[in-house]
Amino acid sequence: MARPSGTGWPAASDARVDIVRVCRRLWERGLIAGPDGNVSVRIAADRLLVTPAGMSKLDVQPDDLVELGLDGRKRSGRLEASTEVGMHVRIYEQRPDVGAVVHAHPPTATAFAVAGEDFMAAVLPEVIFQMGQVPLVPYATPGTPELADAMEPVLARHDAFLLANHGATTCGPTLLLAHQRMESLEHAARILLAARQLGRVNALTADQVAALLEARTRAGLDVPAPLDADEQGRRSE
Amino acid sequence: MARPSGTGWPAASDARVDIVRVCRRLWERGLIAGPDGNVSVRIAADRLLVTPAGMSKLDVQPDDLVELGLDGRKRSGRLEASTEVGMHVRIYEQRPDVGAVVHAHPPTATAFAVAGEDFMAAVLPEVIFQMGQVPLVPYATPGTPELADAMEPVLARHDAFLLANHGATTCGPTLLLAHQRMESLEHAARILLAARQLGRVNALTADQVAALLEARTRAGLDVPAPLDADEQGRRSE
Amino acid sequence: MARPSGTGWPAASDARVDIVRVCRRLWERGLIAGPDGNVSVRIAADRLLVTPAGMSKLDVQPDDLVELGLDGRKRSGRLEASTEVGMHVRIYEQRPDVGAVVHAHPPTATAFAVAGEDFMAAVLPEVIFQMGQVPLVPYATPGTPELADAMEPVLARHDAFLLANHGATTCGPTLLLAHQRMESLEHAARILLAARQLGRVNALTADQVAALLEARTRAGLDVPAPLDADEQGRRSE
Amino acid sequence: MARPSGTGWPAASDARVDIVRVCRRLWERGLIAGPDGNVSVRIAADRLLVTPAGMSKLDVQPDDLVELGLDGRKRSGRLEASTEVGMHVRIYEQRPDVGAVVHAHPPTATAFAVAGEDFMAAVLPEVIFQMGQVPLVPYATPGTPELADAMEPVLARHDAFLLANHGATTCGPTLLLAHQRMESLEHAARILLAARQLGRVNALTADQVAALLEARTRAGLDVPAPLDADEQGRRSE
Repeated sequence: MARPSGTGWPAASDARVDIVRVCRRLWERGLIAGPDGNVSVRIAADRLLVTPAGMSKLDVQPDDLVELGLDGRKRSGRLEASTEVGMHVRIYEQRPDVGAVVHAHPPTATAFAVAGEDFMAAVLPEVIFQMGQVPLVPYATPGTPELADAMEPVLARHDAFLLANHGATTCGPTLLLAHQRMESLEHAARILLAARQLGRVNALTADQVAALLEARTRAGLDVPAPLDADEQGRRSE
Repeated sequence: MARPSGTGWPAASDARVDIVRVCRRLWERGLIAGPDGNVSVRIAADRLLVTPAGMSKLDVQPDDLVELGLDGRKRSGRLEASTEVGMHVRIYEQRPDVGAVVHAHPPTATAFAVAGEDFMAAVLPEVIFQMGQVPLVPYATPGTPELADAMEPVLARHDAFLLANHGATTCGPTLLLAHQRMESLEHAARILLAARQLGRVNALTADQVAALLEARTRAGLDVPAPLDADEQGRRSE
Repeated sequence: MARPSGTGWPAASDARVDIVRVCRRLWERGLIAGPDGNVSVRIAADRLLVTPAGMSKLDVQPDDLVELGLDGRKRSGRLEASTEVGMHVRIYEQRPDVGAVVHAHPPTATAFAVAGEDFMAAVLPEVIFQMGQVPLVPYATPGTPELADAMEPVLARHDAFLLANHGATTCGPTLLLAHQRMESLEHAARILLAARQLGRVNALTADQVAALLEARTRAGLDVPAPLDADEQGRRSE
Repeated sequence: MARPSGTGWPAASDARVDIVRVCRRLWERGLIAGPDGNVSVRIAADRLLVTPAGMSKLDVQPDDLVELGLDGRKRSGRLEASTEVGMHVRIYEQRPDVGAVVHAHPPTATAFAVAGEDFMAAVLPEVIFQMGQVPLVPYATPGTPELADAMEPVLARHDAFLLANHGATTCGPTLLLAHQRMESLEHAARILLAARQLGRVNALTADQVAALLEARTRAGLDVPAPLDADEQGRRSE
């Protein structure tokens, strides 16, 4: 996986190879089906590479990726960008620390989002350590600006999002982390669903959670502080 | 994936490679088992390629495919066509817009068909967008003309069908779309089953569904209008 | 897949390649785990090839297979035969029509065998068509002659067996069919479990089952008639 | 798989290849997600190879492995060792017979560990034969010495451990056995969960269990006797 060196972003050619590899793994792991899923990597402060619309992600090749500006306009590429590109652009805009975004339909995690459950964090340490809390974003039509609007109130404070009746989105400084968070989100959902079926879910204690949050801070995995403390109101100003 | 260029159909050699790839993916994804599954592509207005009977689909090679006329008679091929070829032929006959048909036994979607549930559309946007509603076709013995007869009342208006106690069939203008619909049908069924196990399934509102159907129309994914408004009666005239 | 030509059995070299392929697919499909599973093919009336004991089946290579006589004694091979070889030998002994045996631990089918359920046939047509009824064999310690003894009363009339608290065994004239039956048994179990979770399992009618059994007979898939009508008593004479 | 020859341990170069293969299989089988999982092999009485921290295990290459002493200090390697290396070192320290350790998050087995269930042994013969009983280790923060401390009371008598709200660890004289035990643990958990969903779990009788434990002893799979009969008290002296 390409990682940003210093303050830089990965080379476009490395990012293309990494995106194709992640697309393949999303399919192999059953986190997407049909035309589902879209993956992007930031290759400059104001430039990203994103998967094309409509393809089965298992078919995506490095040359199929589309290069866009942060304004969402295509800079190069034969194909059209994913219809979910507005969500990607909004995340990069609001989160200068983010280097990659993964959107998928992980089936068990999406079931939580269909059941209206918003939070899977106080049971499994790897969720807390890797992602903190995972909010549930209210439903908005996929592929519309309303979906990006619905995510905006929680964008600054989280790296993983359940989208009601739709799927999940994860982000991170690198594609490695964004993709790992997506895999782990579904894995945690599977464990939690099976534990419920067994009839009991033992939660962690407050002290156990605090120890994990400290470890998360030490590992440098905290979300950077939002630019504006009045997070809810900042876009309506 | 080969796609029809203009009003044309894919070259037979491309279609052979695409069918083999789809067979492999159906197995890898667990949508078929044993000798299950059959896939066809229209290579001319009155000609199709279809998978052979009896083989494990993971073993199918391009030369194993059978070429048939729309009358169901073999034009070339060493092997015998799938026993479900009657269903394929009926779809191509009734739906001049269809370029590919996929029949599989996706396990969770088939469970809905065993439970007698006919409709999975008002919860997940990707089902509505890709397939509209998915009807449940009454049981008829696999491999008989009665199965094609049972599908006929709903053939003109749908691109995905649950077959009671049997499996599912999807179609589309290209194999890409027919196959994506099959993958997405099972994926949606898995999400819905898990949401039920969690105890709640939040349905979309009428407005939310309407927005998706509009997007579907804009994307050109609507089923072409039936030739005859009195759809139910048209074959019995 | 190698198939017997005429009354003959497959060449040993073909059978070795086929067994390795089936071992790989059993693992990829999740029908075995750890050292589970064993596969054999008859290469002469009184000779078979079987997988070795202890290996992960994904690691098995053609040269690892063990050649045995119908007396269970090794004729060639560096490794020791599977500890379940007694079950294989008993099947070949009792069923001259059988050319291959597959034993695995398909997880959902095995769950039926843990729950004490013996019959999954009147719901899904592919089970009836491919396997008829699937009996539940009472528990006996794996790897002992008692397991083969427990199977004996039903050996003559069936091609697929659930083994209580243990797993499943399938057989057929070819490895292709024995393996397809194992895949289909697990697939059917997954569909049935999910249908129960949805809350309803619609059974086929007696007429629908009769139509499938006729199709099965026409396809030549019936188990050959037992040598002795008094099947239960024949081994205790 | 490399196996110790005589009293020796596998060559480091063989162990590197074997660890990479096991990492791949853990991912393919869905036993790990994201950065989960760590695998080690003892290559000398006081030396081990272990997977690095943070990587997706599917990406691990032989040169990425880290060589450590039994004191947990790195002897060679570009990367940092897994954060769970303390658990590995503790096992090798306490169990001179152990040649390999596998830690993963098998989703269904972990669900048992979230539900507070400690024992899956009296139902499925392969669990008893391969692993005996599987204790549930109380929760401790992953990656801390407290986790190794929590395992210590049961380390001497078991080869497989469920870790509450976390995952599972298996060990054995070879990586082959440690890995097979991890696969079989999850497989057994899947079977047991499905059997519960079917509504009944038939347990083995005491005689049936005794027969399996005898077979286990004959196969040389028993855990070597602990050095100290007062196992609970030995580390607090």
